[in-house]
Amino acid sequence: MADEVVLVDAYISMYGMRVRIALAEKGVEYEFKNENLFDKSALLLEMNPAHKKVPVLIHNGKPICESLIIVEYIDEVWKDNSPPLLPRHPYQRAQARFWADFVDKKVSVPGRRIWFTKGDEQEKAKKEFIEALNSLEEELGEKTYFGGESFGFVDLALIPFYSWFYAYETCGNFSIEEHCPRLIVWAKRCMEKESVSKSLADPKKVYDFVLLLKKKFCVE
Amino acid sequence: MADEVVLVDAYISMYGMRVRIALAEKGVEYEFKNENLFDKSALLLEMNPAHKKVPVLIHNGKPICESLIIVEYIDEVWKDNSPPLLPRHPYQRAQARFWADFVDKKVSVPGRRIWFTKGDEQEKAKKEFIEALNSLEEELGEKTYFGGESFGFVDLALIPFYSWFYAYETCGNFSIEEHCPRLIVWAKRCMEKESVSKSLADPKKVYDFVLLLKKKFCVE
Repeated sequence: MADEVVLVDAYISMYGMRVRIALAEKGVEYEFKNENLFDKSALLLEMNPAHKKVPVLIHNGKPICESLIIVEYIDEVWKDNSPPLLPRHPYQRAQARFWADFVDKKVSVPGRRIWFTKGDEQEKAKKEFIEALNSLEEELGEKTYFGGESFGFVDLALIPFYSWFYAYETCGNFSIEEHCPRLIVWAKRCMEKESVSKSLADPKKVYDFVLLLKKKFCVE
Repeated sequence: MADEVVLVDAYISMYGMRVRIALAEKGVEYEFKNENLFDKSALLLEMNPAHKKVPVLIHNGKPICESLIIVEYIDEVWKDNSPPLLPRHPYQRAQARFWADFVDKKVSVPGRRIWFTKGDEQEKAKKEFIEALNSLEEELGEKTYFGGESFGFVDLALIPFYSWFYAYETCGNFSIEEHCPRLIVWAKRCMEKESVSKSLADPKKVYDFVLLLKKKFCVE
């Protein structure tokens, strides 16, 4: 039986982009179901009752939720399709998981607060966001990618945020490149990969979506 | 060379308890370094500069941080010492990771708010906490452990919170057993395992620590 792979996702979701990149890296064909996040489908609510969030990968009818967990699943199931996304050595695997988790805890949360707040709260969020990116720059060091010579788990966890940078910068009135020039060089390098450039949303469309969110949550 | 294993931890940490259980399950000998969380050591700050939190496992001089990541590392490194903590099949592995992550997102956060807040905010936290435990009860179903017949990753992720139940119940003036009787049966079953009972903190000592925290953060 051929694999039936469905991705319940939203175009602008950085978490969905991670899964799209992983599927592209592995050359897995799938059906893309775009969710309206303001009016979630019965399918999404049924497949992810605990969190009601995209992305959900449905593989032969069975749902897998939470982007980094989905990516590990993809790496394990289609392990012969391409170089592994996670390193093979336990210590390096732990380090990759640590930095991907760091992105979720230290980049994602202040990132949201950049467009969701203003004044002092926004300034604090910008500072935390830049500090987190600086830590990531330090971890990247002189390497081509976070994992070394080949694109991997941490690259995949972080690069979708690049498509949100324009929205963060516009809402926060600051330049990320000014503070993190080496990260921008890395991001442009990642964007040369088709698996990445085809999976990331258009930054202008992300910004339009953020404007919608700001209106919905009455953030002026 | 024999493995040198050091655990930088705090006796009352539910995250540290996870690692202690995993090491006990695998029969790994280690040196336990108890941190004073009100005056963190230079070693902790050096080994986990990103989060400055316990637990940190130092294996032959190299630090691994974040409890669930440490547990996966232990499962991978000492893979021949005992049955695996994570299932072997990718889908079951993804499910185990999902529910362990669910504990972090949906049990831990409202749990903290039970002792950290009062009034309506506390009532809301209690409700969310019980809802999360009810979801876990549903996932457990009629199984002996979350993974089936043998104690595994989700059991290990959740059971340390059992040692905090007394503190939650006393601060929140409610009974967890009344709302989640099947979870208490499961918890008592886990406590019959020496790897668990020896790793969990004394609930009265956890409560004393919570009283210290409340005083420190001026929560009356």
